[in-house]
Amino acid sequence: MKVYTTTFNVKTKSRVEIVDVTDDVVGAVRESDVETGLVNVHSRHTTAAVIVNEPETGLLNDIVSVLSDLIPEGAGYEHDRIDNNADSHLRAILLGNSVTLPVVGGEPDLGTWQSVLLVELDGPRTRTLRVTVIGE
Amino acid sequence: MKVYTTTFNVKTKSRVEIVDVTDDVVGAVRESDVETGLVNVHSRHTTAAVIVNEPETGLLNDIVSVLSDLIPEGAGYEHDRIDNNADSHLRAILLGNSVTLPVVGGEPDLGTWQSVLLVELDGPRTRTLRVTVIGE
Amino acid sequence: MKVYTTTFNVKTKSRVEIVDVTDDVVGAVRESDVETGLVNVHSRHTTAAVIVNEPETGLLNDIVSVLSDLIPEGAGYEHDRIDNNADSHLRAILLGNSVTLPVVGGEPDLGTWQSVLLVELDGPRTRTLRVTVIGE
Repeated sequence: MKVYTTTFNVKTKSRVEIVDVTDDVVGAVRESDVETGLVNVHSRHTTAAVIVNEPETGLLNDIVSVLSDLIPEGAGYEHDRIDNNADSHLRAILLGNSVTLPVVGGEPDLGTWQSVLLVELDGPRTRTLRVTVIGE
Repeated sequence: MKVYTTTFNVKTKSRVEIVDVTDDVVGAVRESDVETGLVNVHSRHTTAAVIVNEPETGLLNDIVSVLSDLIPEGAGYEHDRIDNNADSHLRAILLGNSVTLPVVGGEPDLGTWQSVLLVELDGPRTRTLRVTVIGE
Repeated sequence: MKVYTTTFNVKTKSRVEIVDVTDDVVGAVRESDVETGLVNVHSRHTTAAVIVNEPETGLLNDIVSVLSDLIPEGAGYEHDRIDNNADSHLRAILLGNSVTLPVVGGEPDLGTWQSVLLVELDGPRTRTLRVTVIGE
């Protein structure tokens, strides 16, 4: 049994943007030499999220649009008095800031249509993701 | 320390349907011979979710109804031009496609009212869940 | 490699309330003597959630307010015929009942603004959280 941890950075370009980070996660899992186990991908930020789904362009636009419908920007939030990004925090809470996936055959066990996606909710910024792999 | 991984299938019968898979998860944890650790239950699909809550019939109907209120079917989504199931993806993103639970005394440490539930969002289909157990 | 598990209790005072439990989680990770690995914080309840975000007072009020907008109390839910807390279950499902974080340098790898928060959705009650740490 071993444990491996690493980080990588993602530079985002817009306030809200979804970036496919699957290759970085697959690379970290290969680097770990873990064949069977779990991999956790964690964002150390309160206004970004990590999800697993299909990076089809239309769907990515739909995600942005649904987040905007469910939690509109500037809708009288108390936190906006301090820092004008309450919607970013609230959307991140709804999506979650990490995912934990199985590792099988030395790779994250993603289905055919699954990618690991960083959801930037208060960019543009440089975001750090930590990948931790445990197994044998 | 050991790691154990297995899969099981669930055949769903409706477009949206919630199936209690606790017995399969408990079975996999027993099979793993792990007494203390973590168990991850992961769906390899982008239009199904895994959650933990109470499988009371009325509540299961409420979940379906709330998902339909928050993310209505066919509400002009871009992804629907490619594949008529944008709502299924968006609902899955909101719920999440895996859960990670403690293992205590050789069983998932579920509370009295907690069950592991597969949420089918684009059925009927055969879904595969992977259960991974790490611990000693 | 080792595994460590413990529980702690939180007494809540209101129906909906958010409690910062970071110190308890940090304490459990130190107790575990794990330097590098993963920590899972799990609520054994179906009407409470665990999230990671910033415990700024205004934002905490915004979270409560958004939950109430998205899933209003007593909106004709079927589960309310049995137990008058369908909204509590539905909100817990949206937020999720556990988080899994990396452990680095013997501490949960939280970003500057990140805290671990228990979201009480059907209080006041005494809630039990289980902390499980795996690593070396």
